[in-house]
Amino acid sequence: MSAPLPPGATIGILGGGQLGRMSALAAARLGYRCHIYAPEAESPGMQVAAAHTIAPYEDAAALARFAAAVDVVTFEFENVPAATLAALEPLAPCRPGVGVLQVCQDRLAEKAFLARAGVPVAPWRAVHTEAELTAAVAEIGLPAVLKTTRMGYDGRGQAVLRSPDDLAPAFARLAPKPLILEAFVPFVAEVSAIAARGVDGALAVYDAVENRHHHHILDLSFAPARVSAATAALARRHAGQVAEALGLVGLLALELFVLPDGTLLGNEIAPRPHNSGHWTMDACLASQFEQHVRAVAGLPLADPARHHDAVMKNLVGPEGLAAWPRLVAQPGVAPHLYGKAEARPGRKLGHANRLLALGSLAEMDDATALKGL
Amino acid sequence: MSAPLPPGATIGILGGGQLGRMSALAAARLGYRCHIYAPEAESPGMQVAAAHTIAPYEDAAALARFAAAVDVVTFEFENVPAATLAALEPLAPCRPGVGVLQVCQDRLAEKAFLARAGVPVAPWRAVHTEAELTAAVAEIGLPAVLKTTRMGYDGRGQAVLRSPDDLAPAFARLAPKPLILEAFVPFVAEVSAIAARGVDGALAVYDAVENRHHHHILDLSFAPARVSAATAALARRHAGQVAEALGLVGLLALELFVLPDGTLLGNEIAPRPHNSGHWTMDACLASQFEQHVRAVAGLPLADPARHHDAVMKNLVGPEGLAAWPRLVAQPGVAPHLYGKAEARPGRKLGHANRLLALGSLAEMDDATALKGL
Repeated sequence: MSAPLPPGATIGILGGGQLGRMSALAAARLGYRCHIYAPEAESPGMQVAAAHTIAPYEDAAALARFAAAVDVVTFEFENVPAATLAALEPLAPCRPGVGVLQVCQDRLAEKAFLARAGVPVAPWRAVHTEAELTAAVAEIGLPAVLKTTRMGYDGRGQAVLRSPDDLAPAFARLAPKPLILEAFVPFVAEVSAIAARGVDGALAVYDAVENRHHHHILDLSFAPARVSAATAALARRHAGQVAEALGLVGLLALELFVLPDGTLLGNEIAPRPHNSGHWTMDACLASQFEQHVRAVAGLPLADPARHHDAVMKNLVGPEGLAAWPRLVAQPGVAPHLYGKAEARPGRKLGHANRLLALGSLAEMDDATALKGL
Repeated sequence: MSAPLPPGATIGILGGGQLGRMSALAAARLGYRCHIYAPEAESPGMQVAAAHTIAPYEDAAALARFAAAVDVVTFEFENVPAATLAALEPLAPCRPGVGVLQVCQDRLAEKAFLARAGVPVAPWRAVHTEAELTAAVAEIGLPAVLKTTRMGYDGRGQAVLRSPDDLAPAFARLAPKPLILEAFVPFVAEVSAIAARGVDGALAVYDAVENRHHHHILDLSFAPARVSAATAALARRHAGQVAEALGLVGLLALELFVLPDGTLLGNEIAPRPHNSGHWTMDACLASQFEQHVRAVAGLPLADPARHHDAVMKNLVGPEGLAAWPRLVAQPGVAPHLYGKAEARPGRKLGHANRLLALGSLAEMDDATALKGL
């Protein structure tokens, strides 16, 4: 186990979006400097970082200078090229490492990994050819979901197959190959749990939350999830299992489907702070971003206990921006914006956390829980 | 009343110390950019700001460029030269304005102002000459405290007069003149209350806290102050009175002495976020820094309610830094560092907030309240 980063050390973050920004804000609170590396000339993270590099992820010279300027490297999203992290690993400690990235940026590797880590998953098949798709559908049945294996997020790169006629057009449209066919899961809820794992192997797992999407983009998280205690505990346990099986040093979100009988099926791993953990910024003493920084910096992890129940509402696109003046005036609501210049449709611009008394959410109907959001 | 600053607008902050840094972090949370103006080449605030200017406070050209680059100007400490703010006021909205600065950077003006605002103060006299000092001591009695009227903080620029022999050396040592002689106040506690006032004149006042000093530097704040409900309410009311009398747009801390009978005497006004308000970062939904930013940006003020009791411990100098590894591992404690490169004796490097259940502090003895800090 390596020594903690001393105060004033520099954390390098690949990616300059809102997750990098909020990680940088949490790092500053702990006395660290941040250096954001991103290809975009202006990014939310750079507005709050002590240093930045604007360069492509493939620029070896820029990466070497970056590695020399920082004490540790992390990333804010799992679609950073694995080659980038592979180039950095000999030059600076990378937390998480490239192995984690490789698992999480390939849905085939991810599904296989989840099963190995002891997290049940829905039936799935790799699909390289249309013939394989036909065979896979014969085994798994319809409806099913066909997805790209790489770079998918917020519902992009997927198609629901309902009839045999859907196969050929979906296969033709989705790229790059291979694809993955997943059995359609008749879930009653989607939950996620966020686990941090320190350099010493210690785990800190936040309470599982229930997530609702709108147009495939996260809209609401209810913390804690309104599921049975056994299901909630299992979701947290699964997140911890995945962190351990990955040998993670950092933080991850595990998304899971809840079936009618309370069974959980693993869906996706996001090996970095996650939108469904933004409620921790106001409802816990240490947010997921602080926890991420602590893990990456080699500090002891913080207690992930909630001191409030919470509902998180995402502010997306022009409608999200339009809600801002109301939310910023709402008692009991903590509003957050990410400093993005343009409010394009579908773009995540901020979020608002409504705090509720500890233990009160379980008995609340949606209208009550969402009041003021 | 002017419109709120839109998301993405830039807040200019004069001063780059920890108060500017934490204000910038709060501004980022609300989607604003910050531009720090400070004479020091490397400052804690600049590490987290989107832009900075390194220039003397007297550099008219740099000030003009700064004013042109920001949407509003505020300051993080009241020892910014009044001439600097006077030069900026025609160029950009300054919140608070130069009038507030002039009152608060001169102890004579401040004492007179407090009395006008309806806050009782201990007897005091202006002292320009040694003869005036002798006359003032004859009226006020000994012990008394002789202070410079400008630029004093953390106990610098003051002398306690206990015997007639102390007068001449203290008068000779303290500079610049004039000085102020203040009656010695046999206080049982020092409390402070923090009030924000918005562009619409709305007030938000945090609960009064009890402060303890070590070598004239704030060491501990207990939130809420363990004084009678009437005294606590009066402290808050006084802070609000001062904000209103100043026509403040921004945030101030009012320091008060508590006499044995519960009477309060006003001591100092700090027209900016204050060390005794750092507990709000973890024990309230909106911190004093967010409240400051809201006032300055013309946003509605947030609810200043506490959701926890708290004890704040300052981390000062090498001893403070030595305590860091322990505090960062302490459950229930939120540690903060300011990114300062050197741990010089007496330098404020960070603080730690211990959260306690709401309402529990009143019955706690010191040893219990300070456990783990």
